[in-house]
Amino acid sequence: MEERSANIIKEKDLVMVYLDEKRQFLVQAIPRLRISTDHGDLNLSDIVGQPFGFTGKTHLGRDFYCLKPSTADLMMKLRRLTTIVYPKDLGDLLLETAVGPGSRVIEVGTGSGALTLVLAKFLAPDGIVYSYDRRDEFVENARKNLERAGYAGNVEFTCADVTRKGFAEKEVDAVFIDVPEPWTIVPRAFEALKGGHHVVSWSPNVEQVKRTVDELEAHDFKRIQAKEIIEREILVRPQGVRPRERGITHTAYLTRAQKVLVAQQQEPNSKF
Amino acid sequence: MEERSANIIKEKDLVMVYLDEKRQFLVQAIPRLRISTDHGDLNLSDIVGQPFGFTGKTHLGRDFYCLKPSTADLMMKLRRLTTIVYPKDLGDLLLETAVGPGSRVIEVGTGSGALTLVLAKFLAPDGIVYSYDRRDEFVENARKNLERAGYAGNVEFTCADVTRKGFAEKEVDAVFIDVPEPWTIVPRAFEALKGGHHVVSWSPNVEQVKRTVDELEAHDFKRIQAKEIIEREILVRPQGVRPRERGITHTAYLTRAQKVLVAQQQEPNSKF
Amino acid sequence: MEERSANIIKEKDLVMVYLDEKRQFLVQAIPRLRISTDHGDLNLSDIVGQPFGFTGKTHLGRDFYCLKPSTADLMMKLRRLTTIVYPKDLGDLLLETAVGPGSRVIEVGTGSGALTLVLAKFLAPDGIVYSYDRRDEFVENARKNLERAGYAGNVEFTCADVTRKGFAEKEVDAVFIDVPEPWTIVPRAFEALKGGHHVVSWSPNVEQVKRTVDELEAHDFKRIQAKEIIEREILVRPQGVRPRERGITHTAYLTRAQKVLVAQQQEPNSKF
Amino acid sequence: MEERSANIIKEKDLVMVYLDEKRQFLVQAIPRLRISTDHGDLNLSDIVGQPFGFTGKTHLGRDFYCLKPSTADLMMKLRRLTTIVYPKDLGDLLLETAVGPGSRVIEVGTGSGALTLVLAKFLAPDGIVYSYDRRDEFVENARKNLERAGYAGNVEFTCADVTRKGFAEKEVDAVFIDVPEPWTIVPRAFEALKGGHHVVSWSPNVEQVKRTVDELEAHDFKRIQAKEIIEREILVRPQGVRPRERGITHTAYLTRAQKVLVAQQQEPNSKF
Repeated sequence: MEERSANIIKEKDLVMVYLDEKRQFLVQAIPRLRISTDHGDLNLSDIVGQPFGFTGKTHLGRDFYCLKPSTADLMMKLRRLTTIVYPKDLGDLLLETAVGPGSRVIEVGTGSGALTLVLAKFLAPDGIVYSYDRRDEFVENARKNLERAGYAGNVEFTCADVTRKGFAEKEVDAVFIDVPEPWTIVPRAFEALKGGHHVVSWSPNVEQVKRTVDELEAHDFKRIQAKEIIEREILVRPQGVRPRERGITHTAYLTRAQKVLVAQQQEPNSKF
Repeated sequence: MEERSANIIKEKDLVMVYLDEKRQFLVQAIPRLRISTDHGDLNLSDIVGQPFGFTGKTHLGRDFYCLKPSTADLMMKLRRLTTIVYPKDLGDLLLETAVGPGSRVIEVGTGSGALTLVLAKFLAPDGIVYSYDRRDEFVENARKNLERAGYAGNVEFTCADVTRKGFAEKEVDAVFIDVPEPWTIVPRAFEALKGGHHVVSWSPNVEQVKRTVDELEAHDFKRIQAKEIIEREILVRPQGVRPRERGITHTAYLTRAQKVLVAQQQEPNSKF
Repeated sequence: MEERSANIIKEKDLVMVYLDEKRQFLVQAIPRLRISTDHGDLNLSDIVGQPFGFTGKTHLGRDFYCLKPSTADLMMKLRRLTTIVYPKDLGDLLLETAVGPGSRVIEVGTGSGALTLVLAKFLAPDGIVYSYDRRDEFVENARKNLERAGYAGNVEFTCADVTRKGFAEKEVDAVFIDVPEPWTIVPRAFEALKGGHHVVSWSPNVEQVKRTVDELEAHDFKRIQAKEIIEREILVRPQGVRPRERGITHTAYLTRAQKVLVAQQQEPNSKF
Repeated sequence: MEERSANIIKEKDLVMVYLDEKRQFLVQAIPRLRISTDHGDLNLSDIVGQPFGFTGKTHLGRDFYCLKPSTADLMMKLRRLTTIVYPKDLGDLLLETAVGPGSRVIEVGTGSGALTLVLAKFLAPDGIVYSYDRRDEFVENARKNLERAGYAGNVEFTCADVTRKGFAEKEVDAVFIDVPEPWTIVPRAFEALKGGHHVVSWSPNVEQVKRTVDELEAHDFKRIQAKEIIEREILVRPQGVRPRERGITHTAYLTRAQKVLVAQQQEPNSKF
């Protein structure tokens, strides 16, 4: 059964090893892999060749599960040099643009590569992510993160300060901005984008949103919108259902807009 | 310039015609297309051949813009027979599974086809969506919605009550459940899923979450989590920045879990 | 039974006449009172002398209830010339200060008198609210609102622009600010407040909060905090429990701070 | 100046000693009081006789402030044997009833006395809180908390299980329920309440709300509503304004209803 064999854990596959909510590990399947926990040691040396979903036991007799990592898992378990970007935000941003398999997109900055990974995954097999960051060590860390996750194939990393020189690409399908001063990228995003297509940006502070929106308005971007996405975990327990009592209360404001071609407008009129 | 030409509006392309937040229309580019608004009539007869981003004028002199529809736009502007599903929820669900280009997934029920569209788009070119609904008119409406959006190619619609007979497919990469009694689908989802892979469900009421979680726990699903995603629009205006004063306050609770292979567990042990 | 008689509806008492969530009326008990609804006419001519809680029937046979208005009801049913202030916000602000029965407080501006009413109620019998507004018609409307609610006794209304002349009162227990430019009141609030006591302000826009906080920091206010309070209605219905799907998503940001006596600090030291 | 002298710290007064958000202490003014912090020692031996708002210095030269505690401060700094009740919730509940100075109310259970304190404060000078709890040590702890805060005068504590015997009081203005099984109190609340008046309850879990609402509906309570109140702290900093990133995400659902007199209804009709 070919399909079934496709679900066998192969060497170097990423596996989400899960005991419980507090004990979960994203590991790469390699020979002689072991994990120690306060619920016992996990012998993962035989994991290669087992199917995803495989249930093992720690040396103390507790069950553990070898699960398929979600895209969110891959994002959240990257080696990080930067603040976290959350699936709730990136999932929404992805749908707020027109990108899909085959698209060519720009992101700036690369950060730890969480968005790079999401884009690389969903633009495959033929799309490409042009990922820019001005900090060498961030680019190198993100490149390793993408290679480990198996999505480095359709990413081109560039270490550069695009504020001055702009992007090398033209007519891209979307520009994603995650830098502390997103408004400085807006003119560069305008140059690089296809007409009618999307720029998105996310920032923790209100002032960043305000200044970015002002700059978008100054550069023939239209349909400018901002929002925030709040996630509440719901605990479903025998004693009752309720939201979790403490957690994350803010990550970022999301801003989106679309480029219009105002100069273009005169031409059809001037024909007459 | 080949790339640039790729951004030209062709006949039957979907275009987001935008005057302002209250006047936006997702239209299919056809000859002799006209829209009437209280800000003037829009002559869209010459739209084919223009680039996305094109700015036109109503007969009263107001600008309008021919924008590229986002995936969210396509979802939100479907012809609907059912309640709305929101990008904030589907974007998150997409990342909470392992699916991507090439995946084989099941969804039940089809509804108006919003999730069908998102999945069809992001699993292209080689993936496939098996979409089930027990109501004939829903399947037909969704099929037309997908055809109009250009994503019907990698969808197989089936009109059936899967509660009794289950799904025809095995070893799929994810099962998405959007029916009023999601717990009735849980055993069927277990049969159809690859080991270690994801089932997700969304429901408006707490009781639905509770009962679905109970059923997931009874069927060797692990890493069961529930949450809700709340979106707040932020108004960025000259007089100040603030969240919008009225809006949507609840859509659905999202539940996710992963299938484990408990029987499988014995085999490695029995070797010895 | 003296206590019981205290619960009898007297002439001019405010009564919340309630059929269902969409049909509720705050009325003053007067002879020959009638209300017409699409569920029938309510003859309230005999309401005086009945106990609160009394159940009547419309001429179409539907039950209606004569309920005791809550403080929130009194607030929400004022004749309004201004935007609404919500119980969720005022209830929290009340506890964020030290005021209680007997306190002397300032509020600016009066608006429709919702906060005036809450303060007048909870500072009774011996406290007093000094309520300022620069607009004559607002003061008059609020005065009538308070008289109708029976709480005008411990309020002193003043129509004045306090930005220039400040408040006539000194050593008050709290200052409540509800004006579009709250930062202009901050120096006046400092002059009027007792040491260590509270100023609170609420505003819809982020910029108002920022500028007010800046001004508070410039005027020896400490323990400056800002927050927002979000209310979600929960629907408990036979078909399931869930938050209401549409509703109010933003009202105001609340800011609070306490006055410190920095000059005072030197005196104890100068003794030596 | 009589008013001014009223703001002098007297022996046994509660004072909020504040260095910064992480270093704040609710203390009782007594001779020879000292506090040690990582920012230096605070000599509070001379605090009695100083005005509220007084600024002192730690032995390391850092300013500290002697502030007037808010009602929220008094609530939050009680010695606690139970989970916290928050000002956002109690402030709203207070306004959702008709109680004010002079009211007679019941609360069950006493817990640590946070609501007891709020009620005792706002019903003074003539009102009374009948506070019930079945656990002796809770009653004793709450009594001490109230005495320390200076609000024990208008509270009557009773250690009893009211589920069986009900309350000794009749015709009270409101009943506040904070027990794990609030529905068991509903019939007792009905007996004790004035017609038309309010019962309120708060609980962390959805099932508690559902069951309480069902019981309220079964006992001639009308205008039944449930909600939750969510507080988000807003950080106003030089680098930007944004909500705090982590914090409290759930406390309790609030339920309220009003008693109607259905039997009473027949009498006025039968007179004629």
